[in-house]
Amino acid sequence: MRIAVDAMGGDNAPFEIVKGCVQACERVDDQIILVGKEALVRAELEKYEGLYEPGHITVVNADDVIHGDDSPVQAVRRKPGSSMVVAIDMVRNGKADAILSAGNTGALMVAGLMHLGRIPGVERPAIVSPLPNIGGSGFSIIVDAGANAECKATNLLGFARMGSIYMKDAFGREEPTVGLINIGTEETKGTEMLKEAHKLLKDSGLNFVGNVEARDISSGAADVLVCDGFTGNIVLKLAEGVAWDIMKTIKQTITEDTVSKVAGLLLKKKLGGLKNKLDYSVYGGAPILGLKGAVFKMHGSSTASAVENAVVRASVATSAGFMEAIEEAMKGEAVE
Amino acid sequence: MRIAVDAMGGDNAPFEIVKGCVQACERVDDQIILVGKEALVRAELEKYEGLYEPGHITVVNADDVIHGDDSPVQAVRRKPGSSMVVAIDMVRNGKADAILSAGNTGALMVAGLMHLGRIPGVERPAIVSPLPNIGGSGFSIIVDAGANAECKATNLLGFARMGSIYMKDAFGREEPTVGLINIGTEETKGTEMLKEAHKLLKDSGLNFVGNVEARDISSGAADVLVCDGFTGNIVLKLAEGVAWDIMKTIKQTITEDTVSKVAGLLLKKKLGGLKNKLDYSVYGGAPILGLKGAVFKMHGSSTASAVENAVVRASVATSAGFMEAIEEAMKGEAVE
Repeated sequence: MRIAVDAMGGDNAPFEIVKGCVQACERVDDQIILVGKEALVRAELEKYEGLYEPGHITVVNADDVIHGDDSPVQAVRRKPGSSMVVAIDMVRNGKADAILSAGNTGALMVAGLMHLGRIPGVERPAIVSPLPNIGGSGFSIIVDAGANAECKATNLLGFARMGSIYMKDAFGREEPTVGLINIGTEETKGTEMLKEAHKLLKDSGLNFVGNVEARDISSGAADVLVCDGFTGNIVLKLAEGVAWDIMKTIKQTITEDTVSKVAGLLLKKKLGGLKNKLDYSVYGGAPILGLKGAVFKMHGSSTASAVENAVVRASVATSAGFMEAIEEAMKGEAVE
Repeated sequence: MRIAVDAMGGDNAPFEIVKGCVQACERVDDQIILVGKEALVRAELEKYEGLYEPGHITVVNADDVIHGDDSPVQAVRRKPGSSMVVAIDMVRNGKADAILSAGNTGALMVAGLMHLGRIPGVERPAIVSPLPNIGGSGFSIIVDAGANAECKATNLLGFARMGSIYMKDAFGREEPTVGLINIGTEETKGTEMLKEAHKLLKDSGLNFVGNVEARDISSGAADVLVCDGFTGNIVLKLAEGVAWDIMKTIKQTITEDTVSKVAGLLLKKKLGGLKNKLDYSVYGGAPILGLKGAVFKMHGSSTASAVENAVVRASVATSAGFMEAIEEAMKGEAVE
């Protein structure tokens, strides 16, 4: 496999991006292609000379950069020489099998739609995000995590099909359970759209376990959580915020006086373990499923280790053939 | 004030309901009227003889009970002699100033709509729920917490007006901040409905602080969080689930070996404090705002102390005149 990485996207580019790719070399055999300002990227790479095999990482020059605050459509149109668009085009031209970027999410989606297009049968590409569930199997994935604020029932069926394939190919969970995020477990609950989606999922042949109430999400009620992108965004960010605030309060608690500090030291390793459980970057980047090409979004503030994990997961999923499986699964779907 | 309490509603009725009302007598001067099967309620009350002033609590008989799994509309129609409906009717007939129930939420809403009706200017009554924010001011309230899965922008404006009044009168927060739950802080974010709601809120004269992203909810981004009932339900239940799972994991952690147990003992009081911070029952019940009468829903599994807090908060808000203030504020609103 050949994995193109946008070396210039995100808050910590190119430093952490390059470092993460070097680290990933120890875990994957794939060719890693760093796309960005060549002099800058090579200067970063030199820091790690001897730490990776020459030839494992190559560099492709791209003079321009799409910034976080650029308007997505304009940026993609006006910056064909940007690292993100050049990397996307490598996938389109068969020069790479997957592309990763920590840059502007909207621009990545637009570049994917404009330069790669949708897989036949896919109404709406969706972003998948891992979501830690400390009370359950470790983590679930959520589709859509924010690309489509409003959805039709058939969109959700597509998300469920694609998400199930990704869960299997990226993480080895055979026949992953699929749950529909809703305000009650009964199939008569929620909006008309959700009632219809429930029916479609029931007849889908997927391992559908029914509606999942928000209170059961963090205990791992389903492997693949399906919802519109508005709900997905709310769920991901709220879970992150609540966990963060609780951990912050605990940290304050175990540092505010001597007795508490002693207790904190005794629990240090374990609380660290809990913190790690809440870190979703260990599960890799967020694929945009439904595009004619394997596109992965990394968090804008990705550290080297998050980049490393994203490269590894992209490699695993792509090698397992998740793109081909999605094409096959979506063939029969009618698109309006 | 005279506060009617449905003695038969909820999982722990009438035991915890009666006990909670007795406890509330130490904190409020209001007349508490327990509505339910008289013999049963009086038998419970006898347990607490001497612990409250005779006359502080009276009993009104109601032979029937609406159960949790009853269909709301049918139950309200077919059980006019149920404790819930009799208690609602006491408000309608001017025999009580507020009514509290831990029973069937749907039935309480239906009984409110059918027997009390809406305040002029109110399009949709909404349920308000407190939401702890451990990183912020202690708690926010969320409107709508689940009564209206789908909403129009004008509904949300009404929720914001009514919620602001309740926050002020029930909790003394003058000019509470109002935030619109959305997937981005910019006013161009979210669905068309949310963009319109943003505009209405901006021009409302309320203390509107703009869109609130889900990640900032638990750190207290606004006093009054406005959203449709679907989103409100997701936010409340997810926050509860995540907090619960983290606290459960911590509890397991501090009991699994001797060293951890020692640390757990040292931190016991503080972790207990954190747990209390996450307990929303201290903020009272959930008022259904917009009905022509002060109606409060208590959680189905309310303990005596939750009931006590609900009675106290209902007393404070009603005495402060939140019903009159809502009537006044909604006068000018156009209803489609």
